[in-house]
Amino acid sequence: MLEELEQVLPGDIEKRSFEIITEELGERTFDPLEEPIIKRCIHTSADFDYADQLYFSPGAVKIGIEAIKKGARIVTDTNMGKAGVNKTALGKFGGEVLCFMADEDVAEAAKREGTTRAVASVKKAAALKAAETAEATGKPKEELGKRRQADDRPLILAVGNAPTALIEAYELIQKGRFAPDLVIGVPVGFVNVIPAKERIMQAGVPCIVARGRKGGSNIAAAICNALIYMSFNKTKV
Amino acid sequence: MLEELEQVLPGDIEKRSFEIITEELGERTFDPLEEPIIKRCIHTSADFDYADQLYFSPGAVKIGIEAIKKGARIVTDTNMGKAGVNKTALGKFGGEVLCFMADEDVAEAAKREGTTRAVASVKKAAALKAAETAEATGKPKEELGKRRQADDRPLILAVGNAPTALIEAYELIQKGRFAPDLVIGVPVGFVNVIPAKERIMQAGVPCIVARGRKGGSNIAAAICNALIYMSFNKTKV
Repeated sequence: MLEELEQVLPGDIEKRSFEIITEELGERTFDPLEEPIIKRCIHTSADFDYADQLYFSPGAVKIGIEAIKKGARIVTDTNMGKAGVNKTALGKFGGEVLCFMADEDVAEAAKREGTTRAVASVKKAAALKAAETAEATGKPKEELGKRRQADDRPLILAVGNAPTALIEAYELIQKGRFAPDLVIGVPVGFVNVIPAKERIMQAGVPCIVARGRKGGSNIAAAICNALIYMSFNKTKV
Repeated sequence: MLEELEQVLPGDIEKRSFEIITEELGERTFDPLEEPIIKRCIHTSADFDYADQLYFSPGAVKIGIEAIKKGARIVTDTNMGKAGVNKTALGKFGGEVLCFMADEDVAEAAKREGTTRAVASVKKAAALKAAETAEATGKPKEELGKRRQADDRPLILAVGNAPTALIEAYELIQKGRFAPDLVIGVPVGFVNVIPAKERIMQAGVPCIVARGRKGGSNIAAAICNALIYMSFNKTKV
């Protein structure tokens, strides 16, 4: 005997899914700004671990929404993550998704510097939004920020795959050479994933991180999409 | 105090990851053909549930490998799944990955027929590899197979997102109008995902299915990639 299908109109499936997630979360309560992000991660993975594992630095969600409203560029570390972000919705605010992993210059830089393409990609992202801080340079404040690009849209770095990308981001931030508005740090895996996430949580930048080993390009995209939908004041939950 | 980084060369990270997965699986044993697929699903999700949840119809892995060696077309139900498949490796056998979700004719067909793009996409895939069976048509055997396309490369349907796609595939297979060589049935979610997977496991086609709610475009891509790497006799485990 085959289990009967639940009769739900195609356009209502997502709504019904979020209702089921809410039911199963039961009595648990969340920060109202964090809740849509947590639920969307569960929605994309059917994994309720995300109810416990997501870390938000103070104000991170608000900062992410403000960035998107100002036309943020989202830089992903995989084309899979890029494919998963709702680019039509993001584009309504003037934003776009960039992934440098398959770029010729990134491949060349990685080869030349004996590093990975993930690291070279983050360097390329950093060049889009570099910062010189007083701490890093010892320069007086009025001389700072000269490297700022003409394109001063916010930048969100979304790492769903490579811990090396997150570690490189941490180091560039420490050196005052990268000033992302928000880092989504959700690489998945077994080698250096946890220490990479620890570093980014201590980097002093706004961040949303999946603690532990879990994450992925799908989770990175889900967090981006939750932020985008919240930017419309349509949280889809 | 930051946790120290494990010193692993970039090229060795995947190997080291699989070693950790093997260690943590401990005494468990798996079918040697199924093991690389199970481990790659864990590798892509850090979720050990896949050690228990993957279902393989008899001979499914062997059939998948044979299909890839013959230049299979892999049809995915998301561009995210398509992005995750190693197209360079697949291309060495003459294969390619197709996703019809963003196609104009699919959008039009969905609108015209009041269905979803996922369903219209599966119909388009079915047209690539239709079959007339004696059961469905009542015709004598020698008249069957006339709809077979000029391009007779094998077809693998890889569903990581839409249960409606899997249900449509089941119905077309039942009617003798779709003859995929292998179905990878790993949609994720909360509405009709489990009944959709039950149907495809009973459809009489070779299939690999993630039982329960879990799955995703990342899992669909991971299973495809495991099959591709095994086709080189390099299982990467």
